[in-house]
Amino acid sequence: MTESAFDYNEHPHRRYNPLTQRWLLCSPHRTKRPWQGGQEKVDQDRPYDPNNSLLPGATRTSGQVNPQYECTFAFTNDFSALLPDTPEGKIGKVEDHDLFVAEAVRGECRVLCFHPRHDLTVAEMTQDEILDIVHLWINNYDELGSKPTINHVQIFENKGTSMGCSNGHPHGQIWSGNFIPEHSRISLESQANYKAAKGALLLEDYAKMEIEAKIRVISSNEHFMAVVPFWAAWPYEVMIMPTPGHHYKSLLDLDDAAQRDLANCIGRVTRRYDNLFECSFPYSFGIHQAPTDGKDYHFGQLHLLYYPCLLRSASTKKFMVGFEMLGEPQRDLTAEQAASKLNAVSDTVHYRKRLTKEEYNAKYIDSA
Amino acid sequence: MTESAFDYNEHPHRRYNPLTQRWLLCSPHRTKRPWQGGQEKVDQDRPYDPNNSLLPGATRTSGQVNPQYECTFAFTNDFSALLPDTPEGKIGKVEDHDLFVAEAVRGECRVLCFHPRHDLTVAEMTQDEILDIVHLWINNYDELGSKPTINHVQIFENKGTSMGCSNGHPHGQIWSGNFIPEHSRISLESQANYKAAKGALLLEDYAKMEIEAKIRVISSNEHFMAVVPFWAAWPYEVMIMPTPGHHYKSLLDLDDAAQRDLANCIGRVTRRYDNLFECSFPYSFGIHQAPTDGKDYHFGQLHLLYYPCLLRSASTKKFMVGFEMLGEPQRDLTAEQAASKLNAVSDTVHYRKRLTKEEYNAKYIDSA
Ligand SMILES: [Zn+2]
Ligand SMILES: [Zn+2]
Repeated sequence: MTESAFDYNEHPHRRYNPLTQRWLLCSPHRTKRPWQGGQEKVDQDRPYDPNNSLLPGATRTSGQVNPQYECTFAFTNDFSALLPDTPEGKIGKVEDHDLFVAEAVRGECRVLCFHPRHDLTVAEMTQDEILDIVHLWINNYDELGSKPTINHVQIFENKGTSMGCSNGHPHGQIWSGNFIPEHSRISLESQANYKAAKGALLLEDYAKMEIEAKIRVISSNEHFMAVVPFWAAWPYEVMIMPTPGHHYKSLLDLDDAAQRDLANCIGRVTRRYDNLFECSFPYSFGIHQAPTDGKDYHFGQLHLLYYPCLLRSASTKKFMVGFEMLGEPQRDLTAEQAASKLNAVSDTVHYRKRLTKEEYNAKYIDSA
Repeated sequence: MTESAFDYNEHPHRRYNPLTQRWLLCSPHRTKRPWQGGQEKVDQDRPYDPNNSLLPGATRTSGQVNPQYECTFAFTNDFSALLPDTPEGKIGKVEDHDLFVAEAVRGECRVLCFHPRHDLTVAEMTQDEILDIVHLWINNYDELGSKPTINHVQIFENKGTSMGCSNGHPHGQIWSGNFIPEHSRISLESQANYKAAKGALLLEDYAKMEIEAKIRVISSNEHFMAVVPFWAAWPYEVMIMPTPGHHYKSLLDLDDAAQRDLANCIGRVTRRYDNLFECSFPYSFGIHQAPTDGKDYHFGQLHLLYYPCLLRSASTKKFMVGFEMLGEPQRDLTAEQAASKLNAVSDTVHYRKRLTKEEYNAKYIDSA
């Protein structure tokens, strides 16, 4: 692959992300520099707070009371960033790219409770419990996406105080609206261009090449695989995508077996994360899939993205600041080194469970 | 400007950033939601640490000893992200946008010590002391940019532990290389397109319109002005740009009077920042100006960007996570509200100085 003495395990280089159409800087020689930075609080303890607004039966700030849910539960965000009834309006001429351009937006935001228990995270859930979350995503994507005013449904999860999430109860969010957010728009444009140029799916071709290369794959089953992308910006960034031969434009295309494999892959990735630094690994997670504006997105492939903020321990965080904000993202550890470290820890036994692999599988995996 | 009941002070909307060519979401109705998030440590105390590696006379990790500098001091970063001697190399075909694309990069990174005193920040420096920093930037941009292998010089500053900066000594950095980083590349492309379409400078037209609009300007003098940009993503983002009638492609175009006005504007912005929440305001700061690859950048206008992370107090931070990472940046407070809050505090007297405006001006401003 290389053409000279240049070795991307050793030498400073840039890599190109074909989804975002952006380069990033990689400085592998620098992985040994000393760290004097701030210490992140490691949030291991999850004491029971009877006033947590996401618990079954809790009264929320709005005065509404949660049902005694026993599985998952979705409700309209009491502090939604988008509202269904914003008046129409525009400033400036969008087509001319004038200097003061704004447009009104409408939408709906939801909170998704993943489990009645306050102290569980996805990494510690059984495959069946994660499958319940997959069903929750599917149902909400379907229901919101069916509304004529909703053209895009963004499912995401912020986990951990260092990702700004103030509530330890396992939960995610949906922001859905009448517009396609920038990262989705650009990712779809990239996939459309690739399909037009090559007659193939960008992410299916990529999945094939990663299986061949081996070094960045951290999990796979029949329908899904997880990799540290060649172009990862965050130290332990991970993407889950369908295996070659499977084309899913959205979660709605998954049959029962594919849904179960997705839950399995999510469980394996999040367990590797927690096991890496023996902490509840903080991340932002989200799903990129077809918009719900009724257009044809045959060129697009469902994929799930993990952007974790830790750098090299439970208490050292990667900051995307300075050069990253003014220039472009930068990382020291290569994607290949990150995959190797993730592969060195278990994806089946969570570090907090004192069980053998067999006992764990019997309890958490094979019960599926 | 508006065409309907839509009011951008009240209703959810998106705004377009003509420099980055990206939209962002704004939710002004949400400014009153309760906050349960993490508390940022307020770093008010700056105890003297005789081992700080940036002090005059200090021995650095590399074993090198700093001179007894009395003004400013620049040295090669002991842990540079870029190196001058990386072998040439490429992976993949860049033109085809293939899936595994990488290229070797070369460059040089420097640390810029702003002052011999460990406990001073830019906000508390005199105009003459800030002018010394401007001279330091000019000299380093000139010297590095003159090297045939350096095509771009990124000057920046990370301030505060919440921006990942582990060393409290007033300092900035330079990462210079043989490539133009993505944010600079796109900003230059936007400015080139605007010049081609309108025959005018994007940022000069913008400066004229902001002077007319008044509501986002937070500081101005003969040569420079500071605004919270209409398209600001961070709550208190600020851009410093030349006033109409002045065209500076880079810091090298500034005469003595313009250099002094730039120092004055920087002092005013950083004092407003510190006074806003009565803390040493954390931010990433950087300068966008002409690359040093010998090409003609007549369409480009020098500008300085502040990306501060605080949301509504010294201890509440804005997190760019979740929807911001997967969708697009989002803010609650509008740019106009942010400018109004910044304008409500002094830009001359720092909150830690117990001096009248006259005493302060005599000591810190008029001495220039
Ligand atoms: Zn949350
Ligand atoms: Zn620093």
